[in-house]
Amino acid sequence: MSPLPNPGPDAEDRRAGPLCGLLVVDLTRVLAGPYATMLLADLGARVIKVEAPETGDDSRAIGPFLPDDSMTGEAGDSAYFTSVNRGKESLALDLRTAADRAIFERLLARADIVVENFRPGAMERMGYGFETLHARYPRLIYAAASGFGHSGPESRRAAYDVIVQAMGGIMSITGAEPGQGEPPVPTRVGTSLGDITAGLFTVIGIEAALLERHRSGFGQKVDVAMLDCQIAILENAIARYQVSGRSPGPLGTRHPSITPFQAFATADRPIVIAAGNDALWEACCKALGLDPLLADARFQTNDSRTTHAAALAHALEGRLRTAPADVWLAALGAAGVPAGPLNTVGEALAMPQVAARNMLVETETPSGKPLKVAGNPIKMSAHPDPSSRPRAPRLDSARTAILSELSE
Amino acid sequence: MSPLPNPGPDAEDRRAGPLCGLLVVDLTRVLAGPYATMLLADLGARVIKVEAPETGDDSRAIGPFLPDDSMTGEAGDSAYFTSVNRGKESLALDLRTAADRAIFERLLARADIVVENFRPGAMERMGYGFETLHARYPRLIYAAASGFGHSGPESRRAAYDVIVQAMGGIMSITGAEPGQGEPPVPTRVGTSLGDITAGLFTVIGIEAALLERHRSGFGQKVDVAMLDCQIAILENAIARYQVSGRSPGPLGTRHPSITPFQAFATADRPIVIAAGNDALWEACCKALGLDPLLADARFQTNDSRTTHAAALAHALEGRLRTAPADVWLAALGAAGVPAGPLNTVGEALAMPQVAARNMLVETETPSGKPLKVAGNPIKMSAHPDPSSRPRAPRLDSARTAILSELSE
Repeated sequence: MSPLPNPGPDAEDRRAGPLCGLLVVDLTRVLAGPYATMLLADLGARVIKVEAPETGDDSRAIGPFLPDDSMTGEAGDSAYFTSVNRGKESLALDLRTAADRAIFERLLARADIVVENFRPGAMERMGYGFETLHARYPRLIYAAASGFGHSGPESRRAAYDVIVQAMGGIMSITGAEPGQGEPPVPTRVGTSLGDITAGLFTVIGIEAALLERHRSGFGQKVDVAMLDCQIAILENAIARYQVSGRSPGPLGTRHPSITPFQAFATADRPIVIAAGNDALWEACCKALGLDPLLADARFQTNDSRTTHAAALAHALEGRLRTAPADVWLAALGAAGVPAGPLNTVGEALAMPQVAARNMLVETETPSGKPLKVAGNPIKMSAHPDPSSRPRAPRLDSARTAILSELSE
Repeated sequence: MSPLPNPGPDAEDRRAGPLCGLLVVDLTRVLAGPYATMLLADLGARVIKVEAPETGDDSRAIGPFLPDDSMTGEAGDSAYFTSVNRGKESLALDLRTAADRAIFERLLARADIVVENFRPGAMERMGYGFETLHARYPRLIYAAASGFGHSGPESRRAAYDVIVQAMGGIMSITGAEPGQGEPPVPTRVGTSLGDITAGLFTVIGIEAALLERHRSGFGQKVDVAMLDCQIAILENAIARYQVSGRSPGPLGTRHPSITPFQAFATADRPIVIAAGNDALWEACCKALGLDPLLADARFQTNDSRTTHAAALAHALEGRLRTAPADVWLAALGAAGVPAGPLNTVGEALAMPQVAARNMLVETETPSGKPLKVAGNPIKMSAHPDPSSRPRAPRLDSARTAILSELSE
């Protein structure tokens, strides 16, 4: 390996992203799998999205949609599809026909990674189970994202995001804190966390398999279940359950073991304050002009503040309601106490920090309409972070180019 | 590269995980960084956790705690610390002293990756900013997880989980669906999603940098901001905001654009049903004995079902309340309609599927008490998935072994 950067094609590669040169054959649909392959594309891999003829990925038909085109009368593109498929190439294949299977297999022979999110067993029925593919393409990495995983008694069970959010426990700890005697009202996390976390863990597994392949020369299977990922993100709820023997419940905006660490009303709009240790608690009280609370026996330690969280919130809000959010955020910010506004989606996207970090980037829908989508949050010093991403593909739009490359 | 697996030390390596052979110097504290390095350790990397003398990682003092030891009177270990630090080695270093800086630098000279989650600028003040380290250790990968990132006007601002959950918009779309004229009540996701997603993206960036280093020979900086990660997981909320011009609000357990896809009351406990397309809607109505709904004009397409979501929920719950959850889950399961119970954390952890997938594994607290923690959701065919993980370290417990290795 050269001790200096090679100024030739390697320099080009670096600009194109850390995963440049890798080819991904992408059979995924809807969200968990497409989110994973979107990240691979963002990091520089070439992603060929293999879709069913005629309809393509189901999410091409899931809203929100852009308005119909008033010139052509053409139906509006799915903004949902666009947001997780920018930067991929589309090839429509009917894997029940011999001709398309031959094309698919020529693609696999050149690919580094195949990703699918069918129900377990579907790839085997098509003749493309891991064992078969591993024997034919020993360097190929096979990644599967499924609802319940490729093993266990519920493996073949169908899942969507809300199913694993419910079964995995996170809905039982998300929601308003019930009053005395009231039952908790479970709440779905407002984004498809069941899919997205599975997508993230799938990418981590794919990259780990690529690193291992540098040593062994062989690909392997990466099997990620949405349900397993829900367990993996429960963090201290698992510890709390074991230590107390009781399942934790929802706490509104509060943290279960750090106080204050929650939203408070002010004279106009709510803010969040997070005083994660005693020094920050002292700074918080002083910044809010609540010095007497520092002598209150109930609020001496983080543990006692958590025990008396309701009384503490009452004391803080009594003060906070006397002035608007901006006043308090300025005072807390000057004192170094972590605090912030409770933003709507529109307010969040309008933050100068979001623009400075390039977290809202330009792309185009399949028919070429501009749309802004979330950027890549992984900023790497050796690679540029583009402010635009190639468009989401029209169904089968890369056919001619791909077939031509395969015949070379 | 050999075309066959090498049965010598490489076979050992494979058993130890895909990242075996990599050395991580881990300066992280509390959650986002430690979650990332826990995953690296789970995947086989060696993680040396460098902690402040005397106190160590702040999370050693964050609950829940195990009971005090009745024999020794020793204070109980933090279950929180244990759950994200299993499998790491601890070395206490005071980086203000020359002796400890020399040890730290000898570690860096052998390391592949250094990870930190200080506020931006802190590493530079210690003399260990990226530019300095990159010049001295050109192959070293430097990963930073921070609240707002290493660039932009808010870079130096302090953050904890709830701050980025609030500022990034997810709290504004999580919570009960307000009635007419009621204001929405923002809700924190019941797990520290702000930290955990930053941890996941950090691992993806580290692995991408390792893959790129195979080509270039050089390490680089990976800069991940918790706020950016919150934007990255908003998915269709960003599209909805752009298409409608209005910020979306919380929807209880509903999906914004797929219906039915939510929780429903039954005679005993709530269940979730997700009918993601027309065929599943038809199967759902038939399984519940609600065939007449199939002719209802309001429920003909997914879009019209979403428009009439309240009427649809009313119709379904009227039927579902006539029998207990188990009856409906059996009927829906037999019909292939995705559905499931709304589990507490205890119920989720008790699922046979969770046991079959090894998602609750044994470890030990720093003083050797057994504790179950979440397993690794990335199942890889070439590597075993152990049902136990090495203990979370006592502060500085690896000092003698590490110093001895460094003097070799």
